[in-house]
Amino acid sequence: MTQQVEFYFDYGSPASYLAWTQLPGLTARTGAAIVHRPMLLGGVFKATGNSSPISVPAKGAYMGRDLERCARHMGVPFRSNDAFPINTLGLMRGAVAAQRDEILEPYSTAVFEAIWTQNRDMGQPETIVAVLEAAGLDARGLMERTADPAIKDELKANTEQAVSRGVFGAPTFFVGGEMFWGQDRLDHVERALREGATG
Amino acid sequence: MTQQVEFYFDYGSPASYLAWTQLPGLTARTGAAIVHRPMLLGGVFKATGNSSPISVPAKGAYMGRDLERCARHMGVPFRSNDAFPINTLGLMRGAVAAQRDEILEPYSTAVFEAIWTQNRDMGQPETIVAVLEAAGLDARGLMERTADPAIKDELKANTEQAVSRGVFGAPTFFVGGEMFWGQDRLDHVERALREGATG
Repeated sequence: MTQQVEFYFDYGSPASYLAWTQLPGLTARTGAAIVHRPMLLGGVFKATGNSSPISVPAKGAYMGRDLERCARHMGVPFRSNDAFPINTLGLMRGAVAAQRDEILEPYSTAVFEAIWTQNRDMGQPETIVAVLEAAGLDARGLMERTADPAIKDELKANTEQAVSRGVFGAPTFFVGGEMFWGQDRLDHVERALREGATG
Repeated sequence: MTQQVEFYFDYGSPASYLAWTQLPGLTARTGAAIVHRPMLLGGVFKATGNSSPISVPAKGAYMGRDLERCARHMGVPFRSNDAFPINTLGLMRGAVAAQRDEILEPYSTAVFEAIWTQNRDMGQPETIVAVLEAAGLDARGLMERTADPAIKDELKANTEQAVSRGVFGAPTFFVGGEMFWGQDRLDHVERALREGATG
């Protein structure tokens, strides 16, 4: 049976971006399948009482430097985003719509890279459309569907399910019942896969 | 010139304990000298507005499991402490006294292991004395010196210096001017030493 790694993420989270860049390598080495779980990190923070590292100024200052070092060690492009923190509600609903259309992979590539390598302000609807169109996606169609109650409900359900499983930040991974938080725990995820954790 | 790694720590921090277990390996591999900087983590939290992960219940629940996994991967003993969080003011002042007497190494070994492998309640003065005596240290002499204003001031100065350098949690390392937070950034510390970071 193929092992699964559930990947809870929000495009507005730089650590989610860094983790996402490592998923192809993880699947190549382990054969595991990634199950993408778009969620609204703001909703998770609200439900758990957690908050962004930037709510503590000294931590926020450090996090930027730490993320740069992590990216350098991973060998992936990264730059901070001047519009951070971004309201990602539309983007995350778009992810649910893209997932239903089985175009989540190009959608995530376009959105993550626009925010975390190209410094685009993806809080602006016209920027979202431009970025998605440049990626060859039906930008207007996807954005229209973010108003679909079924799409809204699915994102909300994903977020609530995350919280009920103990998620408090992003990215969060599950291998069976084992939860792992942070792009810096992918080594633990990989180890759990090799040890055949089933939860 | 010997490279230095400054190690800001508090005995009450399980991540500080895990980092401390890795320092002999780090020095053996890199030749770097560790400069111990005892600080009061509670003072750092107060000054920076940061707080313990346990202040977010879901995060607190996860941290215990995460620390267990980190310890297992490091191959070091670890168990949670039933008295956590511990008021470490006396213990940290004791560290400053022990440092002046050049007995910080056996003192740290006794205190870290009592808390994070033996589940001792090191918030109790009689337990502190018993643990230090069992380690062959002059427990009462050390504890008396925790009332010395010069010792108190030095711990306070260490803590204030930490905050002024950007420290917001424990453990924190400096290689020259570069700051690294967490037992899970020792790989970054080692990399900085190899790259000859000088600040």
